[in-house]
Amino acid sequence: MPLGVFDSGVGGLTVVRALRAAFPSRDILYVGDTARVPYGNKSAETVTMYSREIIHFLKKNGADRIVVACNTASALAVEKLRESVSVPLHGMIESGVQAALEVAGSGPVGVIGTAATIASGAYQTALSQVRPDWEILAQATPLLAPLVEESWLQGEVTEKVVRRYLEPMMREKIRVLVLACTHYPLLKGVLRKVLGSEVALVDSSEACAKSLESTEAKVVEKGELKIYLTDEPGPFFGRVENFLGSGSVGSIQRIALEPVV
Amino acid sequence: MPLGVFDSGVGGLTVVRALRAAFPSRDILYVGDTARVPYGNKSAETVTMYSREIIHFLKKNGADRIVVACNTASALAVEKLRESVSVPLHGMIESGVQAALEVAGSGPVGVIGTAATIASGAYQTALSQVRPDWEILAQATPLLAPLVEESWLQGEVTEKVVRRYLEPMMREKIRVLVLACTHYPLLKGVLRKVLGSEVALVDSSEACAKSLESTEAKVVEKGELKIYLTDEPGPFFGRVENFLGSGSVGSIQRIALEPVV
Repeated sequence: MPLGVFDSGVGGLTVVRALRAAFPSRDILYVGDTARVPYGNKSAETVTMYSREIIHFLKKNGADRIVVACNTASALAVEKLRESVSVPLHGMIESGVQAALEVAGSGPVGVIGTAATIASGAYQTALSQVRPDWEILAQATPLLAPLVEESWLQGEVTEKVVRRYLEPMMREKIRVLVLACTHYPLLKGVLRKVLGSEVALVDSSEACAKSLESTEAKVVEKGELKIYLTDEPGPFFGRVENFLGSGSVGSIQRIALEPVV
Repeated sequence: MPLGVFDSGVGGLTVVRALRAAFPSRDILYVGDTARVPYGNKSAETVTMYSREIIHFLKKNGADRIVVACNTASALAVEKLRESVSVPLHGMIESGVQAALEVAGSGPVGVIGTAATIASGAYQTALSQVRPDWEILAQATPLLAPLVEESWLQGEVTEKVVRRYLEPMMREKIRVLVLACTHYPLLKGVLRKVLGSEVALVDSSEACAKSLESTEAKVVEKGELKIYLTDEPGPFFGRVENFLGSGSVGSIQRIALEPVV
């Protein structure tokens, strides 16, 4: 049975990339809701409804476990969806927090994400539950995903945007920055340049793949990747290859989601 | 009977602002599809389907004329929708082109808009049909709407982004720039600073309102504005007041759109 993975768009393919590296034998079904992307500026109710429709599709297509490869859906919808969905759901938050714990000493921790992710307080709450003594600095960085989609992955503008967003955290001398959006691993170069080498970057895509190690078997045959998008595969949301890495993309199929009541 | 106006989000309120100034007595129903915003990175088929659902809602609520206050929907969907919709539809393209003709001498004309608007070639085709001798420079500027939604309406970053996008046009010494997205009038200050005072800016919101003058009666009573959004009114897509101006916002109501087959 395949592993289901979904995101608002193609950003979640950074998670697929990490999952394929960790579990090469696992078949993966990926849904990108490109007809309604992004989720980061939408309400919890709307994001929960969209996620429910996608989970319904993935279950119908045989997924026995689902990775919510979207930080916004993880922050706004996963807890509620677990109450009603009969398949294990892996969100991004627990694994991101776990990875932050592993690299952080005692210094302040920064979190960056979409407006909705940061406003939900999900990361801040999860972090302060395990380390109430830590100072946590959260910053919504809604321009970073559009910069990645425009493929402005480096250069003066991107650096200045990053600097403007991160200045308050840099003043507080954060030691760890949690990248709480699937697009941000593509900005690691700029983030390192701005933050310096002393700040550890937590890539939530890698952390998420790592968190599945206890549930996933290691087999050597090569698994298959199927990508489904709710809008035509187009050039308007960044190149699929940017997110997925150099592996072959395989087939991309367009689907229509059904409302779930 | 009210005038229907719609956009992918709240950007179309810049058109409502111009319409209310021109026709203060007209009742207006506005739909912002904030649950699926933006349209500028989506396909023609998807944008047409969404627009059809909104037009269905507006007609059901009594609209006798509909302004498509979204350049992307105007570029991708209006022509097709006119075939099947029994109410007059006003897109943004004809009026934008008309306004460009009025201010342009002979010099090259620039057009900026979303990725989908520019890729559709709608403005380029419409302009070259009336003035085949003009040089037309079109540039997708997908970072400008997110900058407006982040309320970074001026400052170094926004200036640098604008300069990077417009440099090729500036080298060709454009005389007119058509702002083919409802968000861009909020960047007029930066655009003027970068382009200088010799380049005329065509505000498609104002041009659209002006194009309705022949069909709309001038009456003095004050009309009512009703705003409907498909997602919760939230803080995530820029302040409604930024787009609408200082007038009272009135009630904002959340609606669910029905699929139209």
